[in-house]
Amino acid sequence: MTATPVSTEHSIALEQEAFVLAVADQLNAFLSEKRTLLASISPDTLVLVDSIKSLATGGKRMRALLCYWGWRGAGGGADAPEVVMAGAALELFQAAALIHDDIIDRSDTRRGGPSVHRAFSTLHTDRGWALDDERFGHAAAILTGDLCLSFSEEQFAAIGASAGSRARAVFNLMRTEVMAGQYLDILEEVSGPGKPHNTAVSRASAIIRYKSAKYSSEHPLVLGGALAGGSDELLDGYSAFALPLGEAFQLRDDVLGVFGDPAQTGKPAGDDLREGKRTVLVGLTIESASEAEREFVDSHLGRQDLSEEQIARLCAIMVGSKALAGTEAMITELSDTAFSALTELPIATNVSAALAALGQGAVSRTS
Amino acid sequence: MTATPVSTEHSIALEQEAFVLAVADQLNAFLSEKRTLLASISPDTLVLVDSIKSLATGGKRMRALLCYWGWRGAGGGADAPEVVMAGAALELFQAAALIHDDIIDRSDTRRGGPSVHRAFSTLHTDRGWALDDERFGHAAAILTGDLCLSFSEEQFAAIGASAGSRARAVFNLMRTEVMAGQYLDILEEVSGPGKPHNTAVSRASAIIRYKSAKYSSEHPLVLGGALAGGSDELLDGYSAFALPLGEAFQLRDDVLGVFGDPAQTGKPAGDDLREGKRTVLVGLTIESASEAEREFVDSHLGRQDLSEEQIARLCAIMVGSKALAGTEAMITELSDTAFSALTELPIATNVSAALAALGQGAVSRTS
Repeated sequence: MTATPVSTEHSIALEQEAFVLAVADQLNAFLSEKRTLLASISPDTLVLVDSIKSLATGGKRMRALLCYWGWRGAGGGADAPEVVMAGAALELFQAAALIHDDIIDRSDTRRGGPSVHRAFSTLHTDRGWALDDERFGHAAAILTGDLCLSFSEEQFAAIGASAGSRARAVFNLMRTEVMAGQYLDILEEVSGPGKPHNTAVSRASAIIRYKSAKYSSEHPLVLGGALAGGSDELLDGYSAFALPLGEAFQLRDDVLGVFGDPAQTGKPAGDDLREGKRTVLVGLTIESASEAEREFVDSHLGRQDLSEEQIARLCAIMVGSKALAGTEAMITELSDTAFSALTELPIATNVSAALAALGQGAVSRTS
Repeated sequence: MTATPVSTEHSIALEQEAFVLAVADQLNAFLSEKRTLLASISPDTLVLVDSIKSLATGGKRMRALLCYWGWRGAGGGADAPEVVMAGAALELFQAAALIHDDIIDRSDTRRGGPSVHRAFSTLHTDRGWALDDERFGHAAAILTGDLCLSFSEEQFAAIGASAGSRARAVFNLMRTEVMAGQYLDILEEVSGPGKPHNTAVSRASAIIRYKSAKYSSEHPLVLGGALAGGSDELLDGYSAFALPLGEAFQLRDDVLGVFGDPAQTGKPAGDDLREGKRTVLVGLTIESASEAEREFVDSHLGRQDLSEEQIARLCAIMVGSKALAGTEAMITELSDTAFSALTELPIATNVSAALAALGQGAVSRTS
């Protein structure tokens, strides 16, 4: 890949900024309308839309941007409402997924603030309400996530993609695959320890493909292309770039989840280990560690009460078994595959440069 | 209302039976396609679609039937794919709501079998998996409900109602209102005891309107009418019938939840009281009971460990305070309002007769 000229970089940045602002405006308009509706039902329900708003208006907008450049690469115009609505729908879907994920993972924090279920528990405690605060928090967050999921769909439907269109098919497939992938993830947490060591990496790879790579990278890019009427060849090319990129992205996420700086990631150190995520990093550890180390990993991963020493020992095993280095090597290989596929895409130079920059940011980030 | 001739009754029954079979076929075809997709991801995920199938293919099909007669009353044909898909979408939505409701309400049973989260917990125990069985059950059921919610939407989108159509607006509104109503319901459980006694009934009435009456009765009927292109006047007339009918239906449900025969309702006696539902029945009790009785109700409702004696005392207070009789009187009044509105509807005699029969069944049922 040749270096991108500064002027191209600048025009890409301006275009992205305009799109991100348009998505934010769209989300604000959509959620304001919902706020009015909820206020008419009962002011007590406004907290639902306010929680959604604070989640949906944060974040890196990775998925929306991939969708945008997929749209642009397939010939879509720079200032089109369809792709803005698609971006907003993707962001709402992501917010819904985060709300329910945080319940499932028992994560009390999200982007440095309280997660939605935790915020509802705190509301319960602060008001001195009856019965159980944690149970109330979970219930309210389940409902908030459901509402957000419906909002996402409503926003997508507003685009008006026809029932049999490729864009609608991608949106449907994305949802089914990510939910199936999340189920495989929680299943692996509980059933992984009893399964063969030598398939731990392949099982973890299947999980990140569906739970993360297809959902966070491939489908958003392909969705944008499909909305603009891109050919099957182009959309297949998008997949060849975005699927390995998404896998590399998730491997980076897994590394950051264990070795990242909490001040930068916004997640407490050791959270992923306490949660018991059986990632590719863990799989490589299980495959390469000694018998004693493996037993330590299997018997400590997923324990809510992990001490600092136990977390440090788990990290040391991951480094010592060369699992960390192995994961970094996989990130490099997947990135190379992705960026090589990118050069093959029949898209305008600025689109290609924008995708390259997004991709680089995704795999080499620190937060 | 005059009695429906036997021949009309018979033709209605045949038509309903044909529709219910068509919805079942549609659900089977839709879920078979999803089963194939999930099998391609991993056979381990098939349990998700199988749980959805067993829920979505049971039940009374109340909402689908209301949708059907709303469609027929607005001039829709007897053998049309749109209304069959709408019926399937409503049944999938209801299945999704039940899956998450059962987590929220901690209900271990549903229609005489285990609820979805309970079935997943049992799977965990039976397989001897690691970590916590209950936590796995909840997580898996959250994901299954999310998947089912997406399926519902996917099925609705397949109808091809345009983005700005009344039918799409009704479907969107239905989802937001029911989720807001469910939130008001759990909020009342925890904040109700601290609120004024004399507004307990009006608060409970608002909850059943959004959580139940609009969702289970008004919106399905109006949706059918909107899909067939019914006029605003007709759809308003549908609301005038179906909203009070839905309220009466829910009041009947609340009475059955406390005083129903567990063998017929499929729910253990006292479940609603242990859950702490603050229904209109409870509201009337709170308003009319003595100070000592009110304190007993407030301090016992929602306790998971209620004894048989405590349940019996709660029931006795509901009868003695005339709250049960008051609820029955409300059911009668709402039914009268509904059936009076029904006679005003400019619809064919057989449609009117079918709606009357559905309505009567809903308010006078025992299960």
